[in-house]
Amino acid sequence: MRKSTRLRELLTEGRTLRVVGAHTGLSAVLAEEAGFDAVWVSSFEVSASRALPDASVLTMTEYLQAAMHVDRACRVPVVADCDTGFGNSLNVAHMIREYEAAGIAAVCVEDKVFPKVNSFSERGQCLVDADEFAHRISVAKEAQQTRDFLVVARTEAYIAGYGTEEALARATAYAEAGADAILVHSKQSSSGQIQEFLAAWEGCRPVVVVPTTYYSWHIADMQRAGVSMCIYANHGIRSTVSAMRRTLQSIKESGTSIKVEDEIASMHEIFALQQLDDWLALEP
Amino acid sequence: MRKSTRLRELLTEGRTLRVVGAHTGLSAVLAEEAGFDAVWVSSFEVSASRALPDASVLTMTEYLQAAMHVDRACRVPVVADCDTGFGNSLNVAHMIREYEAAGIAAVCVEDKVFPKVNSFSERGQCLVDADEFAHRISVAKEAQQTRDFLVVARTEAYIAGYGTEEALARATAYAEAGADAILVHSKQSSSGQIQEFLAAWEGCRPVVVVPTTYYSWHIADMQRAGVSMCIYANHGIRSTVSAMRRTLQSIKESGTSIKVEDEIASMHEIFALQQLDDWLALEP
Amino acid sequence: MRKSTRLRELLTEGRTLRVVGAHTGLSAVLAEEAGFDAVWVSSFEVSASRALPDASVLTMTEYLQAAMHVDRACRVPVVADCDTGFGNSLNVAHMIREYEAAGIAAVCVEDKVFPKVNSFSERGQCLVDADEFAHRISVAKEAQQTRDFLVVARTEAYIAGYGTEEALARATAYAEAGADAILVHSKQSSSGQIQEFLAAWEGCRPVVVVPTTYYSWHIADMQRAGVSMCIYANHGIRSTVSAMRRTLQSIKESGTSIKVEDEIASMHEIFALQQLDDWLALEP
Amino acid sequence: MRKSTRLRELLTEGRTLRVVGAHTGLSAVLAEEAGFDAVWVSSFEVSASRALPDASVLTMTEYLQAAMHVDRACRVPVVADCDTGFGNSLNVAHMIREYEAAGIAAVCVEDKVFPKVNSFSERGQCLVDADEFAHRISVAKEAQQTRDFLVVARTEAYIAGYGTEEALARATAYAEAGADAILVHSKQSSSGQIQEFLAAWEGCRPVVVVPTTYYSWHIADMQRAGVSMCIYANHGIRSTVSAMRRTLQSIKESGTSIKVEDEIASMHEIFALQQLDDWLALEP
Repeated sequence: MRKSTRLRELLTEGRTLRVVGAHTGLSAVLAEEAGFDAVWVSSFEVSASRALPDASVLTMTEYLQAAMHVDRACRVPVVADCDTGFGNSLNVAHMIREYEAAGIAAVCVEDKVFPKVNSFSERGQCLVDADEFAHRISVAKEAQQTRDFLVVARTEAYIAGYGTEEALARATAYAEAGADAILVHSKQSSSGQIQEFLAAWEGCRPVVVVPTTYYSWHIADMQRAGVSMCIYANHGIRSTVSAMRRTLQSIKESGTSIKVEDEIASMHEIFALQQLDDWLALEP
Repeated sequence: MRKSTRLRELLTEGRTLRVVGAHTGLSAVLAEEAGFDAVWVSSFEVSASRALPDASVLTMTEYLQAAMHVDRACRVPVVADCDTGFGNSLNVAHMIREYEAAGIAAVCVEDKVFPKVNSFSERGQCLVDADEFAHRISVAKEAQQTRDFLVVARTEAYIAGYGTEEALARATAYAEAGADAILVHSKQSSSGQIQEFLAAWEGCRPVVVVPTTYYSWHIADMQRAGVSMCIYANHGIRSTVSAMRRTLQSIKESGTSIKVEDEIASMHEIFALQQLDDWLALEP
Repeated sequence: MRKSTRLRELLTEGRTLRVVGAHTGLSAVLAEEAGFDAVWVSSFEVSASRALPDASVLTMTEYLQAAMHVDRACRVPVVADCDTGFGNSLNVAHMIREYEAAGIAAVCVEDKVFPKVNSFSERGQCLVDADEFAHRISVAKEAQQTRDFLVVARTEAYIAGYGTEEALARATAYAEAGADAILVHSKQSSSGQIQEFLAAWEGCRPVVVVPTTYYSWHIADMQRAGVSMCIYANHGIRSTVSAMRRTLQSIKESGTSIKVEDEIASMHEIFALQQLDDWLALEP
Repeated sequence: MRKSTRLRELLTEGRTLRVVGAHTGLSAVLAEEAGFDAVWVSSFEVSASRALPDASVLTMTEYLQAAMHVDRACRVPVVADCDTGFGNSLNVAHMIREYEAAGIAAVCVEDKVFPKVNSFSERGQCLVDADEFAHRISVAKEAQQTRDFLVVARTEAYIAGYGTEEALARATAYAEAGADAILVHSKQSSSGQIQEFLAAWEGCRPVVVVPTTYYSWHIADMQRAGVSMCIYANHGIRSTVSAMRRTLQSIKESGTSIKVEDEIASMHEIFALQQLDDWLALEP
């Protein structure tokens, strides 16, 4: 079964799917191990892992490669964060063909102008005209070749300072253009905007949320509010930074790695994640 | 100044250089921040980050790309772990040209048969004939175009079960073939083999060690024993595994990310590592 | 329909399929335009396009990328030349997973030792033990995830100086190990060896030939002799070399491109191959 | 000597340098063989080789990879066609760092809006504000790390329907912002616009031209008119299309490759271009 078909099945189960950001095959393996339903190949995480800004500096090629590496390492479906679609409708059509042909289950595109900047930056955000973005969604849906591949349309209306009316209007337009799900983003510290959106949402498409700032909203409450998918978009890489920083500083300062040896995974734990024994068994 | 020139300068300072494994640009930034002299683009780390075994499954192309990503993210020199050289002398010559042209300061090749398996695996290890490997080192040195690019020859004699005599004979042959430094590897839990090697080593080339198993050997003692470079080869990625595992499990089990928010780096800490403000200042 | 399914269908039609080497998306478009049934992503062509020897110097990553570029540009199935499988059984398993996940219909692996050299080189050829290679074929078939993906086993027995007995024994072992087709290669200037092989072949698997040196053997005669697929493996790139050489020399010598303008495709012919108008129509 | 230093030297010789488009390492080898001074890694050629439109659909990553493949295959300097710089000033800064670190001698950026479309398309062209583009040039020059790396600023003023006044104003602004050379493009069938520009140009920077449509203008006349570099930007790939088309159709129609064997390069000619014997001599 294709992973896109699997993701569609999961979306019909009625519970809030839990999805977590991954930037490497290894983080995807750990996401699957922890029981997440799918992984989100976050452009924030991928650009951070390169120590480059999340500002359309990395290219579609690099994001697609990251998505493929993640996809090959885990059995759960991949939802690829494709930012603005990397340009205009031509870029969107090309992106769809490349991601779908590469076996990625779903992509997400957002209604910001290219080049974008991360939604949590203090820099002001600029949206694409709603009709123009709806056209891109319809181009995306026409470009796909297999039935179950999914296109998630993300509106940054709240991020750009607009209210619920604009968010709903955009979400409706994108759903009508064929989007398979709507991601509505907010950078408030409470889930107020999102709850307002959900209460008014009459579209038949699933709603996806990213509780980076309103992180105290519990998954059970999301479910009651009608959220179909919750993406913890950046916690994986944020945990690696604090851990690596502590580890490297300890080694540098103390002159050995003794102090960190018990805190960090052993070589054999890594071998297990790499499934080294299974691989070696292939060679007589 | 080229980074290869900088690395040669560092090697003449007389202290034991401290080098740490990096598998992403981000880990390289943290290595530089912690004060390490250079970074080691470890094939173990790079393959682990893909959740694939460290067994010549990833290709030179993929290791080189990782090395380039690391190199571009930091100001310190990169020493690229090139395993066996990826095949025979043709592969070694091609590898040298590609790494050098891409701006990498130094490469390390080891005297195991391709395809290799990680030195800490329980699988038996098989060495290339010493003369044949010395020939590869001379091919490597003839292939390079710039003066200061470095080729480190690594002997796995101890790893393959041989004694100090074999390790010295191989190191001597490789030094005579032109190697700019000798990496002598051991998987003992003490530094005994390495100290025996160093005591007997009369070669004029710097000696590099990787204290993964004999991690209690202090940097000051290494210096006294004559070590020119100490590589902490895998601690970065080992720290990310334990941190991501804990974080992802907490989010999954508790239904929010509240419990981990204080333990993991904030979005703004990541923005700082990405130098987001400097980047945004480029656009008026 | 997956392209692997399409290729299996074509193989049941009973005629000799005509397949041609492609090294770029553009050459694949021209192959499809000319009516070929499938394209062969030749390691000779791909390495030649890099001006590098066909000697396992390029990596699986690079060949896979070429295969993906070719695949995305045409509607016909791709048969990817995977040389020796790039190492041992681990490399073969990894290769299968990567090519299949990337949407390639079929791969071909040959029983030469890694690193290989092109079969038409004067350098002596060395074969892998037949049982060991048969094991690799079985590993390949176990690694695949979809039903219709094809693994072609290529024997270089004739190339390495062996006779029909060895070629048949190897082909039989590989077919029994699960190979979906057998490619038997010869560098004779007549089709004698191949015809001898075909006359004696009792395996139920289709036989594939590459008439680089015995190019006067007509497709109708191949069909009568029982050939299922004929690969013209290198004519595309060979034609580009003579054409580019003539064109560039003319421009250099004459001081303008006047003399070549009528011989070479116009910008608008290239725009048509790029389907520029269709692309531009996506943007309102 | 770095290739950027070599290119600067060539530009001081006073003659019109002859540069030709290359899209592969192989075409670069043929360009060098024919005596061209440098190669132009054309975004038109690279996208055409993928059978994709020259419309900012391929990414910086893909163009950079093509430039690296070309650079490694030849000894002459590479001038990389970087279209619009791939977005805003952040993209330009990133692009400069990546190309320079990868060893490319020079890049060219043009003052069209991203996503662009090929200058010979009938689609109307849209220019970036001149001050904004001049800022990008200054960002580019500040981003580079080595002294001799070159940034060529290309104005599409004529292509977008403006006259000589606008072309000169833009060229002057870009030169003042630090551009190392000015490429002025025209799609007229005569060299009238270009000659008008050159007659009025008082900037101290070298002028580069691309005689795709005004191809009857002789190199000697260019020299007299003050052209520093002439780029034959697309003839290489145009010659491959007509040659491959003829070859593939002949094979398909005639049922053998007999008719084309004498027209196309032999396997041994390709081996020579690959320098196969030199490579094989590396292995004893």
